[in-house]
Amino acid sequence: MGTTVGPMSHPRRREALRERLRELQLDALLVTGLLNVRYLTGFTGSNGALLVHTEGDERSVFATDGRYRTQSERQVPDLRRMIERSGHLRLAEEATEAGIGRLGFESHVVTVDGHAALAKLTGVERLIAVSRPVEALRLIKDDTEVAALRAACAAADTALAALLADGGLRPGRTEREVGRDLEARMVTAGAAGPSFETIVAAGANSAVPHHRPTDAELCRGDLVKLDFGALVDGYHSDMTRTVVLGEPAGWQRDVYDVVAAAQAAGRAALRAGAEVRDVDTAARDVIVDAGHGEQFVHGLGHGVGLQIHEAPALSQFGVGTLAPGMTVTVEPGVYLADRGGVRIEDTLVVSDGEPELLTLTTKDLVVVPCL
Amino acid sequence: MGTTVGPMSHPRRREALRERLRELQLDALLVTGLLNVRYLTGFTGSNGALLVHTEGDERSVFATDGRYRTQSERQVPDLRRMIERSGHLRLAEEATEAGIGRLGFESHVVTVDGHAALAKLTGVERLIAVSRPVEALRLIKDDTEVAALRAACAAADTALAALLADGGLRPGRTEREVGRDLEARMVTAGAAGPSFETIVAAGANSAVPHHRPTDAELCRGDLVKLDFGALVDGYHSDMTRTVVLGEPAGWQRDVYDVVAAAQAAGRAALRAGAEVRDVDTAARDVIVDAGHGEQFVHGLGHGVGLQIHEAPALSQFGVGTLAPGMTVTVEPGVYLADRGGVRIEDTLVVSDGEPELLTLTTKDLVVVPCL
Repeated sequence: MGTTVGPMSHPRRREALRERLRELQLDALLVTGLLNVRYLTGFTGSNGALLVHTEGDERSVFATDGRYRTQSERQVPDLRRMIERSGHLRLAEEATEAGIGRLGFESHVVTVDGHAALAKLTGVERLIAVSRPVEALRLIKDDTEVAALRAACAAADTALAALLADGGLRPGRTEREVGRDLEARMVTAGAAGPSFETIVAAGANSAVPHHRPTDAELCRGDLVKLDFGALVDGYHSDMTRTVVLGEPAGWQRDVYDVVAAAQAAGRAALRAGAEVRDVDTAARDVIVDAGHGEQFVHGLGHGVGLQIHEAPALSQFGVGTLAPGMTVTVEPGVYLADRGGVRIEDTLVVSDGEPELLTLTTKDLVVVPCL
Repeated sequence: MGTTVGPMSHPRRREALRERLRELQLDALLVTGLLNVRYLTGFTGSNGALLVHTEGDERSVFATDGRYRTQSERQVPDLRRMIERSGHLRLAEEATEAGIGRLGFESHVVTVDGHAALAKLTGVERLIAVSRPVEALRLIKDDTEVAALRAACAAADTALAALLADGGLRPGRTEREVGRDLEARMVTAGAAGPSFETIVAAGANSAVPHHRPTDAELCRGDLVKLDFGALVDGYHSDMTRTVVLGEPAGWQRDVYDVVAAAQAAGRAALRAGAEVRDVDTAARDVIVDAGHGEQFVHGLGHGVGLQIHEAPALSQFGVGTLAPGMTVTVEPGVYLADRGGVRIEDTLVVSDGEPELLTLTTKDLVVVPCL
């Protein structure tokens, strides 16, 4: 995949964050959520922290440990870099010494122990809890992010197409074999890896919403639920398709049709300005009306990006409205215990009009021919 | 791999935790660290919480959401189960209603926001911060854990042996290809997947301690550093070997010999009762004496288990002594910028005598024949 987040994105994102810091009258924000550090700098290592100074990048500092000296020079060329084992503590200490009076910290990331360690260095009165300031920006994907998600979804589509074309779904293969095959094909299609552990659930197992692949063999007549995604440039695609091996039984087609109709209703309701709960309701009503409300045991969808599950939650418990640039899944399911289940899931980009569909595999019921 | 954590381990672990709760005079502990929940129950889903009541399992409760109803029935048959979206909050609320006066929480896991949400339900005075109570148990692996780690290390050994036997390391292949090949072979050897993103670093890239594989091709004369591991039953193996493609240059052999001697010294110092810092020193001294102290930029090793990096840290910053049943890595390295680096890493089980070596691939310099 040729998609990479351009180096210019990160200063822009830091500048957007500064607007929020000014509103909160903070002198700086200590960013310790690793994905948030990545989002704001491009750094992909496993230890990093960032002090975003409200005055500008000249006073902002990135910290990581000695393992990442070379990597951070390459990935974070545009900020002062500090090489320290517990860099976030040193950043807080340095900020205090420099006279910073109101230092924000990510209160949804910093633990109770972590807060105590910071307070020891800064004084507790200087530390201002701020919940999810970077996540608030991450909610709306910029062009480079959508491009990465598009590429990740394309890798997943390509892998599934190749799996089907090569007869990879057939009686006698195990769930585990199919899962590995699909994951390998995503890598061949350009993914860095799967975006989460692939779910392959055949027959009665398809009634378990988050079944993990086993050595159970696929059998003629099975519904086979495939929930998988690809990782590209740190961005996660997410797609579910449910196919049937051989001619479907009446009940299988019925359940499939209900879920497909619900999924279409969810997509139709997905646009900027909609309440997240209403999008869930639009899909859920179809399933409830068909008498399967009790068997749709999860929310309709979730945001995807640097995490496989992120805001917004499209569910009865969600609050808030959709905005252009949010990337979300729409994934209703109906699960009939001991018989089988169907889930159909797309990843889409919200816009003022029709959402952009990123997962392009058909949602018609795929009947895999069995000889 | 046939190894699985037997169902009897989990009640035993909960009982061991209760001893600690009694010492702390807690009525119960709310466990929200997901790996800690897994350790204490066997639950492998992505959302779970556990109230361990000091009086016994009869009053303890496991909580997860509706997606995991079936899975939790199977994996946690021996505890009362609660199906709730934000189960940890409901557990805390229920504990308060039941009259619990001192409710411990994991202060290294619960965030500042999370603490505020709990305090709203329980009253802040009821919540007692406890740092790493379950990690303290996890430090010493029981037999089922060591068996899983042994199996994980065996899968990694098998994969590397097969890679070498099949000529998988040769000029013209890219780092990325080799990484994927090694990962696929671990899965073939029984792993659920790699235990972290495989590091393949050839030539000058081997001087970057945590290099990520690129499309750079392996060349004759390169040092090739392979740092990788397998995941079995949730347990992580970790091994590094550095090989050379074709006859080594003098400097390559010299650096290799220094690192190998340091690694042997580290292993020799590794036994119950040793200070973690002294184990680091034993290996580090060899490298310092050879004039490469500045180029050994990280600690000697770390614990492995349900996490790829866990306690104890074997480093100059570590405190504490080793005890039988700890599983740790010993991984010194010397990195010569723009030339190349060598790291050699084993996973071992600490005992009163010689540690048990779990990674069995040779540590002699492997010279890969190049035609």
